[in-house]
Amino acid sequence: CDQAARDAAEARNDRLTKPPRSLGRLDDLAIWLSGWQGTPKPAVDNPQISVFAGNHGVTQRGVSAYPAEVTEQMVLNFQAGGAAINQIARSVGARLTVHAIDLDRPTADFTQGPAMTEAECVAALAVGWNALLAGTDLLVAGEMGIGNTTAAAAIATALFGGEPRDWVGRGTGVDESGMSRKAEAIAEGLAANPVASEDPLEALRCLGGREIAAMAGIIARARVERVPVILDGFICTAAAAVLAKAVPGAIDHAQAGHQSAEAAHRNMLLRLELDPILTLGMRLGEASGAGVAIGVVRAAAACQSGMASFAEAGVTG
Amino acid sequence: CDQAARDAAEARNDRLTKPPRSLGRLDDLAIWLSGWQGTPKPAVDNPQISVFAGNHGVTQRGVSAYPAEVTEQMVLNFQAGGAAINQIARSVGARLTVHAIDLDRPTADFTQGPAMTEAECVAALAVGWNALLAGTDLLVAGEMGIGNTTAAAAIATALFGGEPRDWVGRGTGVDESGMSRKAEAIAEGLAANPVASEDPLEALRCLGGREIAAMAGIIARARVERVPVILDGFICTAAAAVLAKAVPGAIDHAQAGHQSAEAAHRNMLLRLELDPILTLGMRLGEASGAGVAIGVVRAAAACQSGMASFAEAGVTG
Repeated sequence: CDQAARDAAEARNDRLTKPPRSLGRLDDLAIWLSGWQGTPKPAVDNPQISVFAGNHGVTQRGVSAYPAEVTEQMVLNFQAGGAAINQIARSVGARLTVHAIDLDRPTADFTQGPAMTEAECVAALAVGWNALLAGTDLLVAGEMGIGNTTAAAAIATALFGGEPRDWVGRGTGVDESGMSRKAEAIAEGLAANPVASEDPLEALRCLGGREIAAMAGIIARARVERVPVILDGFICTAAAAVLAKAVPGAIDHAQAGHQSAEAAHRNMLLRLELDPILTLGMRLGEASGAGVAIGVVRAAAACQSGMASFAEAGVTG
Repeated sequence: CDQAARDAAEARNDRLTKPPRSLGRLDDLAIWLSGWQGTPKPAVDNPQISVFAGNHGVTQRGVSAYPAEVTEQMVLNFQAGGAAINQIARSVGARLTVHAIDLDRPTADFTQGPAMTEAECVAALAVGWNALLAGTDLLVAGEMGIGNTTAAAAIATALFGGEPRDWVGRGTGVDESGMSRKAEAIAEGLAANPVASEDPLEALRCLGGREIAAMAGIIARARVERVPVILDGFICTAAAAVLAKAVPGAIDHAQAGHQSAEAAHRNMLLRLELDPILTLGMRLGEASGAGVAIGVVRAAAACQSGMASFAEAGVTG
């Protein structure tokens, strides 16, 4: 973060024609953007939404309300423009990129051992690392992957502790017995991968999936390039949590776009000290919640950069 | 509301390529829009934001952190494009109209008797009634008026009961003694205008202001024209509350755009059974909170109208 730009943004914000900080979170977001974009007049002219898709061996444990082939079917839907994220990306004027990662090669069932080899995990991280487009001034990362709330809950249990049940939710809509199967699979996965509880990156490799690793990769790349990030829901936040636990400050450039209806998301945000911009009861994934939040962040940038000062407007401050 | 269109929208929504109702509030907003726009494929192509400005005699009681001349100065700022709402309107692609209503003729100090004569109140209502533009598919009404949180709190006390102190907040930023002056002025205003507690429209006339009446006028007109409305903060919601108390169902076409940082706004929303779309700690007025919410409602319409069904996309539902 560019502290001088951030300080200049705060000073500019105080002179704008409004009671001090009366735009609330919009003022905070504008100043945060300024720090990462390195200017007191930030802009959201070229937002990017990237959706990563992967398949999960753990689906054979009956952890999802949908069959695994839906991951590929939905990727085709993204490519044809028929999914929610296509409409949201258009409505906020964002470039959308879709990355299907080895869908014909699901991760291994983590109840039996590591979901990915080191080479597989690094390759997936690299897909994300290389997906950041030139000129992007605000990044949203999202996912599609039948079974991935179970993988994300397993990562959360490894990173933050507690019982698997604390981190399990209904995902796309499983019933109570589905929730129990998710918790049992996670308990077995933690037992089968003891290293996952000791090292955040091992939690990602052993319990995660390719789309989760790719989100971690693009979020890390954005940190290096000083591109501000809006996190999507439960699974995206789990990817960010791996980075935050691995390297202090690794997600300082990220805001939580929304609080998902997936019950454990709120707890994960609290652990990461992230305050969601939106709370709309969304639980779709696909970057949909963070995609909607782009509009809020753009409004924040527009006010910060376009408003007149009291002196310029001749208003009694 | 067109119940057939609403039913068709619900049926369509259930077929779209997402777990049922997984867009949460966006699904609700899309179905609400459908009912008022009379189509299962709603659109937000021509949103309108109208800001009404008025001056208040009660400002002589020291109820605001800013002098009364700031109302007119801010109108000039709106006209020059320098205010927050100008930037927000541009960022969401809304047409912005600004209506300064008799700024050189403040309302009478309501601690001494009615703020407006019947003719004055009707004239202000008519300004709003006539401000709805042809083709508007989503309306936001907002305001500017130094002193108007006191007027709105007085209306709330008359409509909902309780003590003036329950409805008083910091407005643009008064201190504790300013809050006490606001509560005292309201108590005096209620005593000087006993009819205000008996008739919602008399509460508007006796305790309100021209911009508040104009907001009531345009919200009522939108109801007749079946144009859906997003309410802004505390003062706009007070205008809507007058309508809701006067005629059951009068604000069925309205959603709460946001929950203001003005403390009593939450209570007013609860009384009206309105659930705010956004909670961003905003307290500026000018239609700013509801203006930001336009982006959320547009995303809801885009998903409802643009998404493929499971059958169209070949996704296993």
